[in-house]
Amino acid sequence: MSDQTTADAPKILDLPIGIDATGERKEFDSLGDVMVPADHYWGAQTQRSLEHFNIGNDRMPKEVYHAYGYVKKAAAIVNTKAGRLPTWKGALIEQVADEAISGKLDSEFPLYVWQTGSGTQSNMNVNEVISNRCIQLVGGTLGAQEPIHPNDHVNMGQSSNDTFPTAMHIAAYKMATEKTLPALRRLRDALEQKARRWDAIVKIGRTHLEDATPLTVGQEWSGYAAAVADAIDELEHATKLLLKVAMGGTAVGTGLNAPLGFGDDVAKVISDLTGYPFETAPNKFAAQGTLDRIVRAHAGLKTAAVTLFKIANDMRWLGSGPRTGLMELTFPANEPGSSIMPGKVNPTQAEAMLMVCIDIMSADVAVQAGGAEGNFELNAFRPVLIAHYLHSALIMGDMCDHFREFMIEGAELNEIKLKENIDNSLMMVTALSPVIGYDNAAHIAEFAQAQGLTLKKAALERGVSEELYDKVVIPLNMTHPGSADIPAAASADASAPAK
Amino acid sequence: MSDQTTADAPKILDLPIGIDATGERKEFDSLGDVMVPADHYWGAQTQRSLEHFNIGNDRMPKEVYHAYGYVKKAAAIVNTKAGRLPTWKGALIEQVADEAISGKLDSEFPLYVWQTGSGTQSNMNVNEVISNRCIQLVGGTLGAQEPIHPNDHVNMGQSSNDTFPTAMHIAAYKMATEKTLPALRRLRDALEQKARRWDAIVKIGRTHLEDATPLTVGQEWSGYAAAVADAIDELEHATKLLLKVAMGGTAVGTGLNAPLGFGDDVAKVISDLTGYPFETAPNKFAAQGTLDRIVRAHAGLKTAAVTLFKIANDMRWLGSGPRTGLMELTFPANEPGSSIMPGKVNPTQAEAMLMVCIDIMSADVAVQAGGAEGNFELNAFRPVLIAHYLHSALIMGDMCDHFREFMIEGAELNEIKLKENIDNSLMMVTALSPVIGYDNAAHIAEFAQAQGLTLKKAALERGVSEELYDKVVIPLNMTHPGSADIPAAASADASAPAK
Amino acid sequence: MSDQTTADAPKILDLPIGIDATGERKEFDSLGDVMVPADHYWGAQTQRSLEHFNIGNDRMPKEVYHAYGYVKKAAAIVNTKAGRLPTWKGALIEQVADEAISGKLDSEFPLYVWQTGSGTQSNMNVNEVISNRCIQLVGGTLGAQEPIHPNDHVNMGQSSNDTFPTAMHIAAYKMATEKTLPALRRLRDALEQKARRWDAIVKIGRTHLEDATPLTVGQEWSGYAAAVADAIDELEHATKLLLKVAMGGTAVGTGLNAPLGFGDDVAKVISDLTGYPFETAPNKFAAQGTLDRIVRAHAGLKTAAVTLFKIANDMRWLGSGPRTGLMELTFPANEPGSSIMPGKVNPTQAEAMLMVCIDIMSADVAVQAGGAEGNFELNAFRPVLIAHYLHSALIMGDMCDHFREFMIEGAELNEIKLKENIDNSLMMVTALSPVIGYDNAAHIAEFAQAQGLTLKKAALERGVSEELYDKVVIPLNMTHPGSADIPAAASADASAPAK
Amino acid sequence: MSDQTTADAPKILDLPIGIDATGERKEFDSLGDVMVPADHYWGAQTQRSLEHFNIGNDRMPKEVYHAYGYVKKAAAIVNTKAGRLPTWKGALIEQVADEAISGKLDSEFPLYVWQTGSGTQSNMNVNEVISNRCIQLVGGTLGAQEPIHPNDHVNMGQSSNDTFPTAMHIAAYKMATEKTLPALRRLRDALEQKARRWDAIVKIGRTHLEDATPLTVGQEWSGYAAAVADAIDELEHATKLLLKVAMGGTAVGTGLNAPLGFGDDVAKVISDLTGYPFETAPNKFAAQGTLDRIVRAHAGLKTAAVTLFKIANDMRWLGSGPRTGLMELTFPANEPGSSIMPGKVNPTQAEAMLMVCIDIMSADVAVQAGGAEGNFELNAFRPVLIAHYLHSALIMGDMCDHFREFMIEGAELNEIKLKENIDNSLMMVTALSPVIGYDNAAHIAEFAQAQGLTLKKAALERGVSEELYDKVVIPLNMTHPGSADIPAAASADASAPAK
Repeated sequence: MSDQTTADAPKILDLPIGIDATGERKEFDSLGDVMVPADHYWGAQTQRSLEHFNIGNDRMPKEVYHAYGYVKKAAAIVNTKAGRLPTWKGALIEQVADEAISGKLDSEFPLYVWQTGSGTQSNMNVNEVISNRCIQLVGGTLGAQEPIHPNDHVNMGQSSNDTFPTAMHIAAYKMATEKTLPALRRLRDALEQKARRWDAIVKIGRTHLEDATPLTVGQEWSGYAAAVADAIDELEHATKLLLKVAMGGTAVGTGLNAPLGFGDDVAKVISDLTGYPFETAPNKFAAQGTLDRIVRAHAGLKTAAVTLFKIANDMRWLGSGPRTGLMELTFPANEPGSSIMPGKVNPTQAEAMLMVCIDIMSADVAVQAGGAEGNFELNAFRPVLIAHYLHSALIMGDMCDHFREFMIEGAELNEIKLKENIDNSLMMVTALSPVIGYDNAAHIAEFAQAQGLTLKKAALERGVSEELYDKVVIPLNMTHPGSADIPAAASADASAPAK
Repeated sequence: MSDQTTADAPKILDLPIGIDATGERKEFDSLGDVMVPADHYWGAQTQRSLEHFNIGNDRMPKEVYHAYGYVKKAAAIVNTKAGRLPTWKGALIEQVADEAISGKLDSEFPLYVWQTGSGTQSNMNVNEVISNRCIQLVGGTLGAQEPIHPNDHVNMGQSSNDTFPTAMHIAAYKMATEKTLPALRRLRDALEQKARRWDAIVKIGRTHLEDATPLTVGQEWSGYAAAVADAIDELEHATKLLLKVAMGGTAVGTGLNAPLGFGDDVAKVISDLTGYPFETAPNKFAAQGTLDRIVRAHAGLKTAAVTLFKIANDMRWLGSGPRTGLMELTFPANEPGSSIMPGKVNPTQAEAMLMVCIDIMSADVAVQAGGAEGNFELNAFRPVLIAHYLHSALIMGDMCDHFREFMIEGAELNEIKLKENIDNSLMMVTALSPVIGYDNAAHIAEFAQAQGLTLKKAALERGVSEELYDKVVIPLNMTHPGSADIPAAASADASAPAK
Repeated sequence: MSDQTTADAPKILDLPIGIDATGERKEFDSLGDVMVPADHYWGAQTQRSLEHFNIGNDRMPKEVYHAYGYVKKAAAIVNTKAGRLPTWKGALIEQVADEAISGKLDSEFPLYVWQTGSGTQSNMNVNEVISNRCIQLVGGTLGAQEPIHPNDHVNMGQSSNDTFPTAMHIAAYKMATEKTLPALRRLRDALEQKARRWDAIVKIGRTHLEDATPLTVGQEWSGYAAAVADAIDELEHATKLLLKVAMGGTAVGTGLNAPLGFGDDVAKVISDLTGYPFETAPNKFAAQGTLDRIVRAHAGLKTAAVTLFKIANDMRWLGSGPRTGLMELTFPANEPGSSIMPGKVNPTQAEAMLMVCIDIMSADVAVQAGGAEGNFELNAFRPVLIAHYLHSALIMGDMCDHFREFMIEGAELNEIKLKENIDNSLMMVTALSPVIGYDNAAHIAEFAQAQGLTLKKAALERGVSEELYDKVVIPLNMTHPGSADIPAAASADASAPAK
Repeated sequence: MSDQTTADAPKILDLPIGIDATGERKEFDSLGDVMVPADHYWGAQTQRSLEHFNIGNDRMPKEVYHAYGYVKKAAAIVNTKAGRLPTWKGALIEQVADEAISGKLDSEFPLYVWQTGSGTQSNMNVNEVISNRCIQLVGGTLGAQEPIHPNDHVNMGQSSNDTFPTAMHIAAYKMATEKTLPALRRLRDALEQKARRWDAIVKIGRTHLEDATPLTVGQEWSGYAAAVADAIDELEHATKLLLKVAMGGTAVGTGLNAPLGFGDDVAKVISDLTGYPFETAPNKFAAQGTLDRIVRAHAGLKTAAVTLFKIANDMRWLGSGPRTGLMELTFPANEPGSSIMPGKVNPTQAEAMLMVCIDIMSADVAVQAGGAEGNFELNAFRPVLIAHYLHSALIMGDMCDHFREFMIEGAELNEIKLKENIDNSLMMVTALSPVIGYDNAAHIAEFAQAQGLTLKKAALERGVSEELYDKVVIPLNMTHPGSADIPAAASADASAPAK
């Protein structure tokens, strides 16, 4: 490409986005002419796709097109610098790419998720819209494909096969880092705050849903916070894998029709434009023949969903009641709970979270299935993967914020119930076990349950001295056992009472 | 309910749908007052949900609300007949329910999928919209909840717990029978037509992707048609399970606050209104405590997706080429295939079908997970299940039509290639096996491949007589073996040539 | 085949199963000689598979080989009748096939699940073992492949491509009907028995885990029984799909090398031998190119798993405690629950059931994935599908029996707790709702909860008369609402107290 | 614990493993007496589990017990050092723990996967076996639980709730690092070796299964190697997460009954014993309440399975034929491919790999489901998770080795076919596109295909000069485009021929 002379550069008009026309306009592609709506920028291939693929209601997410804006802009910059594109053409493409990035052209990207597996139709949609918008800005004839041709100029040095996965990575990375991770961090902070606030309040632990030994509410919530913190670490790791982009591989990974170093240069510009450290993928054959990095990135989302499911599930159970459940926590009454049962309050944020997590976990099955199905130089399941990735990342982010704001932050303890549980529980007997032996301790607990006694009463009746009992069975101490020394003299080997 | 006197029936105004107001209007529910957009019919609980659950972009599918229209209308009819609702109130609710059924109120149902797990918020959305639209039609004050109260009248004898699963079944049944199954049947017919057309054209069979014995193209396609026919049978079976509806169980399945026989009566009216044989579920505790029938109905979709995946995958492979693939079939060039490789035609409809099938198969994981998670008297994963069911059924229907129209119907055979394959294949040797024994036959095939010979040449060199070869190795006969008698004298036991 | 003369029929020796030899024996196949262990019947191809596929510890389930016994026996019977096989050869094969059916040859079938996708290696394992056992019984030389040749005689008129799916269907059908379904029926009966026993005992209902209106324990358990009954119906339906078998299609579905009617005849004999109504599949191209019927049959198992998960989950929650959970049920203490907490009893059978259900639900993902992956005339994911099917069906059957015997049958009610819950619950207010209106009822419930009052006290303080309260709020009546007439005079429209 | 005096230390006998007894022996636990087989070491709780949980054929993997050997040994060491256990008792336990580690006690660990969700029964199995083996070694009475008590001594300072997840992590980490990762690395190396060997051999690329621009075989295989290398990186990352262990948390994470620092100390000793850098988990409530790290570790396996599926799938397609497929590669004929089609060779190793990958991907669904289902202080789905993890890691490792040894290493190129494809392909036209423009190039390709011409002939007929064609369309150059300068004068903007 060498049309370097800028002498013929046309004036760029200051025209708002939009085409003031009605009816249809003729566009063409290599298969021939196609009529398109006259008030839209898209061309023949977009229109063909609209007609052949109007399947359901799932549209390619707009984030993909915003990301494509960066791709087209970066390619134009590099092509211009290399002298492959006249400066004015490059500047024109850049200007319109900025409009795409900003979302102002969103209504020009109407294609469905269920299209060609390479995403070519969405790439051509972008190429066509940029081409026609450029043509408009220089007063040309829409559909003439000149002076800015969708393939030869907007797509210069590119293929759908390298640009689409690049746009996928950009869109996914931005969603995860700008939406999902911040929301997860806010949730972690809210959980930590509660953990600190309730650090000294003792509650009964539960294992197998059954009464177990005590812990503090703060300890329990520290576990929630730590689990979310771990999920964040993993998601950060998984998201970083997306920073390697396929650009430069063109059709099959060899980089045909792109100049040497194009991939590196474009990645560098994308990095500058987005502020995120994108780099060219080290092996383009893997980068285009697989979608492995998206698969791994989504696995990061789904393992976070596993964590969130557990927390939301615990929350709704701990808040169950108000009169016949576990009743340890209360949550804000955000809305009436029932159309027939007056006064009912339900853990609806937790339910929504559980459904969101199930959705994300099942999406992972689509992602892994599509990821596995690549053939040779291209994985042709890209649309379904990016649609699922962006959907999962979006609803996880939004859901974490809602769950935090409308459920976690307003959670309150039912301290009366917590104390009652501690007083009633039999599993305090565990503290006696190192002193009187497991078997003796077991018999005391069984005896208490069979007779309906408190643990203390049962222990005393079975020969434990009140002094020993009161010294050992101290709920708060049991939650921080290291701080309370168990007297050596009272060991199982030394002084177990007779069975 | 006994307000039978119709003396006080107000005049019903002839007002188009829509509220000519701006700003906000005060609505209330049991938790207090809420401001809602003045130009919408919805009330306090809808507004609360909108604010607490604006998560992602997934809205409860409109089909649920259309189905709810039938539920509310049928309940009003039965309540009126039973004298629980004054005739004019019943008629008013019926009239507005018809507007919901028709889709004219769609923009009044803005709630998200990620909401309370019972669907209560969507039920209340319906109740509130019908209430206010009724109030409007009799010149009342919007938000006054009289003379038509969202709970006491629109929801009379009902709970979200029985109406929402009823609406789910109606919406799902209609989608499957009106959209998915007809499209599957059209696809089956198109496949059968090709099977008949190509009944006598021989082609090489493939097992393990490797050359195998011949069959006719018609036989191969009869297998596709038969597989789709089986999928249809199964989907019909699975869909019929939805004809049992929960109505009448109210809050927990006992039917509290509904009169005896309410469930039967309402189901009967729904059956009359829809033309589909809905019946009351025999056990309401199962009908509300589980979502098993939706789980099974979706399994019917997913097993159809398994079938369709295989067919679409075969198609794209059989059409691979044009110069270096299997090249047996050609498909219409619906669009340019590549943004960088000129003249490329890709099997995009098959790719879209594969992605759709993966999506449906993964949705089945969400459906089974949510289905398993019910607790006690309610399964609170309804929204995610119905959203997935309707989505799967819709995209399968649309996709089948597109795949048929744009790929199957225009498929053509490459008869030159088919014949070349038959001529070159070594697996014709199988016909010799019963005559000369498996081991001798194997050695001939191996010899041919090692030496690059045709099978015939190799067979003759290894001692098979040309007469025997020409008598036994007849491709078309091999595809209908029963019609060609293999001479008894030439059996493996009698006359196998020496190895 | 015509070696009809029985004059040369050798004497069949009365030899027990087993080869009295040490070291190795030479066997051969079309690729050459292979040394095999001298004390085993298997031949060259089995040995090759053992060496190339010793992957993990997963062996092809024995049930597949038992089923193959029926296939080989039936084929021998039909081939003999048709005069394709001398009578004595047929009788010999039949005799050894019976040994396979009985399980006595199990140790001769050592192959792994992870082998060729068609199951050819397991078919050849059967062919080789039957061949050599036959040879042994007539005093021949092991490995000589005469007078009974593994391919030409044992496999006569057959291919792995039709016999393996036939054996899959037989094995799966038998497992489902003989193991899984009976266990499910026993569980349903046990649940029904409890439902009848506890028919009149009132308990609090729960929706969203929150207190709801009452039902009887019998009603709740009738829901469990009905859900299992539905699951049984579906599994019966799904299992019946397996009665169509591929036999007769041979290599690619055309039936090459099998006589006309072979498939029908063999299916008929299999039906006679097994006592189950197996029939030839109507379209062999679908029967061999797909595994759709196994996919659907497994879907029947997985939807049953969805049902069982819910029931087991409810059970463990209802039995949670003993002092701080829901405490409505008690289950047998089958074992000490904890290595550290003495006296602990856990719902271990329910936990095992939940894990089994998760396993079956996830297996369905393998089954659907493998089902979708067929290519052309063969689905080459058979081993992984049949291994998962048989595993799922087996563990579901065993688990249902254990869950029933060790958890359900010994379940007892905690009637004190049930009554306490009814007395404390606020959702009894629902019964007042049709009389005083939803909003008034809601305010009473909220008032009670806020003040810590009983519902009755709150209702009376808010202006409900004691007479009305005692007439309407009768827990047992609320569980069978149709039997208690609500006085017409007390309707919401007529006599609601002022708000 | 303080029985420090070693004066009473009994002599440790030099007895081989095994109990010379027949019939049954009486053992007891807190629920009473149980008869166990006299020739086994296990006690009452193991026997109870065997009787209540003999479900299917799935046994807890032996690796869990080997790992438990490390746990028990490390605990004994730390308890002894702390003076909680007399030296001789500690030494005795250590000695028997070594026997467990070595696998010599494997037959003493018979329990099923489907058991209590905490793994308590397997922990008690270990405790009982070690107890009785210790008792045997000091000449005591089996079943007496002294001088080494299963709970008080072998389980000292421990709970199933912290030891079982610790054993899970150890077993999983060892399997991944000792079996799976080395096999993946060997596969990567084999792929890299082929990539280097075939670096300069040109082949046609394929996207959407359709002919695309050329690349070298070495480039294609470099993509496979790079993809496996990425999978290894991710699996290494995921596996490292397992190095944090729960030990020290005991019953609910508080560490009750364990001394301060016990978790750190035990983890340190485990690290010393295994040579792997295990550390105590920073938050025990997360470590015991979730199984998130196992979930993430398995996700590492499943994303590797996604990668391997693609490679195995490509391989079988590239080797398809021998006469009618893609025929680019040949693989070793490890076994006859068909029982009916003589001479058939199938890509069986690839098929086994595909099935293994499907199995691992579906196992991930069980792992995520069980991972999400934890409640409160314990995730009670441990057995199903560790069983799946170890199974997936094992079969991936074995499968990679077999796939490499029996398929990859013996792969050979069909260079005749590769060249033929290059000569016939039309997508070489892409090289002309930057010179003559996309549209002109497209028309040439379409013209060639319609007329059945070679690309060159078509190009010349459409006005491209032979000089230009021969300069630009050079397959090998097209695979390394950066090295060939495209003349500036021939750009699309400057000199495109008329359409």
